[in-house]
Amino acid sequence: MPKRVQNPFKKPAAWTDSATLLVDVATGRKPADLVVRNGRWVNVHSGEIIPGTDIAVVAGRFAYCGPDASHAIGTGTKVVDAGGRYLVPGLCDAHMHVESGMVTVTEFCRAVIPHGTTSMFIDPHEIANVLGLEGVRLMHDEALAMPINVHVQMPSCVPSAPGLENAGAALTVADVEEAMTWENIIGLGEVMNFPGVAANDPVMAGEIAATVKAGKTIGGHYASPDLGLPFHGYVAGGPEDDHEGTRAEDAIARVRQGMKAMLRLGSAWYDVASQIKAVTEQGIDPRNFILCTDDSHSGTLVNDGHMDRVVRHAIAQGLKPVTAIQMATINTAQHFRLEREIGSIAPGRLGDFLVVSDLAQLSIDAVYARGVRLARDGKLEVDIPVYDYPARAKNTVKLGKKLKAADFDIAAPHGANEVRVRVIGVIENQAPTRALEADLGVEDGIVAMDRRNDVCQIALVERHRGTGGVINGFVSGFGYMQNCAMASTVAHDSHHIIVVGTNKEDMALAANRLGQVGGGVVLFSKGKELALVEMPIAGLMSDERAETVASKAEKLVEAMRAMGCSLNNAYMQHSLLALVVIPELRISDVGIIDVTTFRKVDLFV
Amino acid sequence: MPKRVQNPFKKPAAWTDSATLLVDVATGRKPADLVVRNGRWVNVHSGEIIPGTDIAVVAGRFAYCGPDASHAIGTGTKVVDAGGRYLVPGLCDAHMHVESGMVTVTEFCRAVIPHGTTSMFIDPHEIANVLGLEGVRLMHDEALAMPINVHVQMPSCVPSAPGLENAGAALTVADVEEAMTWENIIGLGEVMNFPGVAANDPVMAGEIAATVKAGKTIGGHYASPDLGLPFHGYVAGGPEDDHEGTRAEDAIARVRQGMKAMLRLGSAWYDVASQIKAVTEQGIDPRNFILCTDDSHSGTLVNDGHMDRVVRHAIAQGLKPVTAIQMATINTAQHFRLEREIGSIAPGRLGDFLVVSDLAQLSIDAVYARGVRLARDGKLEVDIPVYDYPARAKNTVKLGKKLKAADFDIAAPHGANEVRVRVIGVIENQAPTRALEADLGVEDGIVAMDRRNDVCQIALVERHRGTGGVINGFVSGFGYMQNCAMASTVAHDSHHIIVVGTNKEDMALAANRLGQVGGGVVLFSKGKELALVEMPIAGLMSDERAETVASKAEKLVEAMRAMGCSLNNAYMQHSLLALVVIPELRISDVGIIDVTTFRKVDLFV
Repeated sequence: MPKRVQNPFKKPAAWTDSATLLVDVATGRKPADLVVRNGRWVNVHSGEIIPGTDIAVVAGRFAYCGPDASHAIGTGTKVVDAGGRYLVPGLCDAHMHVESGMVTVTEFCRAVIPHGTTSMFIDPHEIANVLGLEGVRLMHDEALAMPINVHVQMPSCVPSAPGLENAGAALTVADVEEAMTWENIIGLGEVMNFPGVAANDPVMAGEIAATVKAGKTIGGHYASPDLGLPFHGYVAGGPEDDHEGTRAEDAIARVRQGMKAMLRLGSAWYDVASQIKAVTEQGIDPRNFILCTDDSHSGTLVNDGHMDRVVRHAIAQGLKPVTAIQMATINTAQHFRLEREIGSIAPGRLGDFLVVSDLAQLSIDAVYARGVRLARDGKLEVDIPVYDYPARAKNTVKLGKKLKAADFDIAAPHGANEVRVRVIGVIENQAPTRALEADLGVEDGIVAMDRRNDVCQIALVERHRGTGGVINGFVSGFGYMQNCAMASTVAHDSHHIIVVGTNKEDMALAANRLGQVGGGVVLFSKGKELALVEMPIAGLMSDERAETVASKAEKLVEAMRAMGCSLNNAYMQHSLLALVVIPELRISDVGIIDVTTFRKVDLFV
Repeated sequence: MPKRVQNPFKKPAAWTDSATLLVDVATGRKPADLVVRNGRWVNVHSGEIIPGTDIAVVAGRFAYCGPDASHAIGTGTKVVDAGGRYLVPGLCDAHMHVESGMVTVTEFCRAVIPHGTTSMFIDPHEIANVLGLEGVRLMHDEALAMPINVHVQMPSCVPSAPGLENAGAALTVADVEEAMTWENIIGLGEVMNFPGVAANDPVMAGEIAATVKAGKTIGGHYASPDLGLPFHGYVAGGPEDDHEGTRAEDAIARVRQGMKAMLRLGSAWYDVASQIKAVTEQGIDPRNFILCTDDSHSGTLVNDGHMDRVVRHAIAQGLKPVTAIQMATINTAQHFRLEREIGSIAPGRLGDFLVVSDLAQLSIDAVYARGVRLARDGKLEVDIPVYDYPARAKNTVKLGKKLKAADFDIAAPHGANEVRVRVIGVIENQAPTRALEADLGVEDGIVAMDRRNDVCQIALVERHRGTGGVINGFVSGFGYMQNCAMASTVAHDSHHIIVVGTNKEDMALAANRLGQVGGGVVLFSKGKELALVEMPIAGLMSDERAETVASKAEKLVEAMRAMGCSLNNAYMQHSLLALVVIPELRISDVGIIDVTTFRKVDLFV
């Protein structure tokens, strides 16, 4: 386990440890550290907006929230005039993967704090697939050093689909039991093996039981439109939330069963607008709805925002602002048994709040966490020291050999002139893929791609154990019109290398380049490197600033466009093509996988 | 500690321990114990009422709730046709004192199960004042033997007002820490010493901290209309709920501060109608409102109902039925961190539900708990064995001497012909009293009562240590027109004997009679015993059936009426006159107490 970096941000003492002081400040016997006057209290408990509110903070917690905090002002008290602006609880992201931002926890926080995020529930599932429990611990410890609340969900499914893929590590029930004793583990990360739960897989049942025993929250992930018996079996197994719904009926089904419907708006997920109709059109009680991002690119964070973007979007669908804010504050806090810690502006809770000038637009003027102003007018005001990842975490791309174009040749069945093959069909802005089929020609015994019909090659290159293994297949939907190849060590969930290309020389160059830089994503065309985002930490995260990563990623997207790919969030779609837990068709280091039957299938039909 | 009675009601295994079976039943691989078909699912998660719902129960828990449970029916499955009737989650009483029913936990359960109560959160504060921690343990153990969920709140304030009264026992922070380790302790009982919390009393702070450390819920009790700094100080100290509000503004203030507003409808409390206007008229989010009874007479239980009465009443105030039901089910469950155990009909939760033919009237046709039908058409269908209280718990009334009429003489200041005295003024249907004053005559140096102006005597007779102590005072509001006296060993909260009488001979007879029978309540008139309810267990509870107690209590009320007392719930009002935590004027074994200043005051003004 790595050494802990000195944490410059003092985590406030527990409410009960500060209670005497809080009571003294509330009653006027001692001065507050901070008093904000004349705000509009966005009260997520009562659902009201209460003008003329003062709040007093001491020892990092709210001590008084009411009409007049003048009694709490002493000589050392910082007094801020809110000038009638809204005071909104700090926003919570209920489920997300830091790794999707391609940056460290520290850089992620730097990027999202100005957008009003003061609590995140992160599932370090990606690093766990590369580095196992040690990877989880690294991010757990980095999270503890943040000036906001970064709680960690213990990854539940590493590998995601045992037997259908081999990850860099495997987590066991004993690992989950161990992690549940760590101070910053808030629950079990999304239980993605939903067929396993419904089939009483002992690992899934054991992990769920360990989580319940620890009094923590079981994250869910039921990625199927089937709301029949498999769904009911999954619910009976214990998962408490789900962010994989896409339709209003999905959200309603989950809420009816006592789960929380987590609606996500990530860089590539657009699941809020459709599902929120359960509330805005069908009148379902909103209390069991929670907003999250799941996966956000650094570009989204830098340009569009984070939870502020999600709340704004939810309001734009017709939710009352306070209802949308509840879904990103108190509902989340309650779900994680943290209602007495975060999620509202109320006595005893951590002093996490936003000063907002327009509620429907959620224009955030200032961001406070634990009573300290961290950002103003979209600019971070504090420095967060770099967290020192050990060398072992930066040396994870092991190819075992130098790849050649021929490694990507797909031999046709003997004597065939034309073959019918399975093709992974990308669906824009959605995680599921389509199981397509295509008729392809054969040249010199090798199956040919069909650029005219947008069928190019995809390969999964093993990178954890240096086996030199390459699995080849076909993909459609990227629209590449040029000779090119893109490779990425971000390849959910086992994070080998996914290479997609129209040209095998470029495919080899791209994969080899990632071996050289320790991971990341790279685009080659005609032997030339058009764009590169280095991600040396586990091959998943950059050690650079989010702005730098966003800029490099933007360059990558531009280069992809120049190659003919017009998909929204094309890079993320690329990185999900090995995700063997979401239907319909995927690729893994084991082969081509049918994720409706959870079986390996032949490339040829 | 007493021996445990054999419990005939198997408490279901934990969800995780039954999960494999639940999943098997949900998916059709194994049969359910019980399937109820064609119900209208009152879904407190979504706020919907869903017709055509089947539910399947196995091992005491819901396994499947959905449109068709035919797959869960096997040869051994009991199948019930709900015929389109409503399926409502079993009702929860969020805060109550069993002792107020003057019966044991067992008898209380017998009485309330037919009324749909399947979960109770009981605060054995009264027995704790007589028998200390052992008394709490007795009721804790009795509670565990019930066929419904009876959770125990550890009494926090015994005595309620240290220095202002001496109870039969005192509970310490160490006692609270000890109780928090017991399997059936759900939290800390109402923290009544609200000035103590706002003044950082170390016992209150210590008990609250012990409760938080155990991850349990802190019950509140802020019995003052002052919503200024003392209220804010109390909130900052940590209590999580309050059932002492009486006005809509009280409920709103509590909810805004992140507390739960518990609205109570007891035998003598009518605090729902006024406070629910916060929701029905002012649009406050109902999710933080909870219904409870606090104190119910056995007569109320037998004749009017329990939580069904409260829910019915809440609906009659204009709440949507499902909203009122949420306030008595899921809201309560969430508050006590039991959302995954009780409070809804959803997979994994205990199989506690009601079959209801009319929702607005809450006509309960059948009551199921843990999947077993316990009552039908208002009749209990199971027997609950008597819980064996030890002899020590039945020998608690120690007078130390035989009382005489002269013990109730109040000597006037030397030479006075007329005196001005403080008079405890009873307010019908409310816990607070008024601090009245009266001018009374003096005969032979002894102050005379004034029956014409309804001023009679009240005495507090010490009964825990046999000191022979008697404190005398005056009371108004009962309207006694005859020579009579009523005595009760139920005398909140320290439970000495309160005697109210117009005649001192009868006062002495009444007090002595209670010493003879081990406690209870008795009414004498002109030397004759008109009514007696024996309560040998701690002087607080009968060992008879609730119907018998109700009948005896009814006879008592009739006798009081015959004496001229027309107060609603006159007996309960009688028993509260020593409650030195609720303003304005009270009597205790220490003297006459001003509960606005928390000071002993002179009887003479």
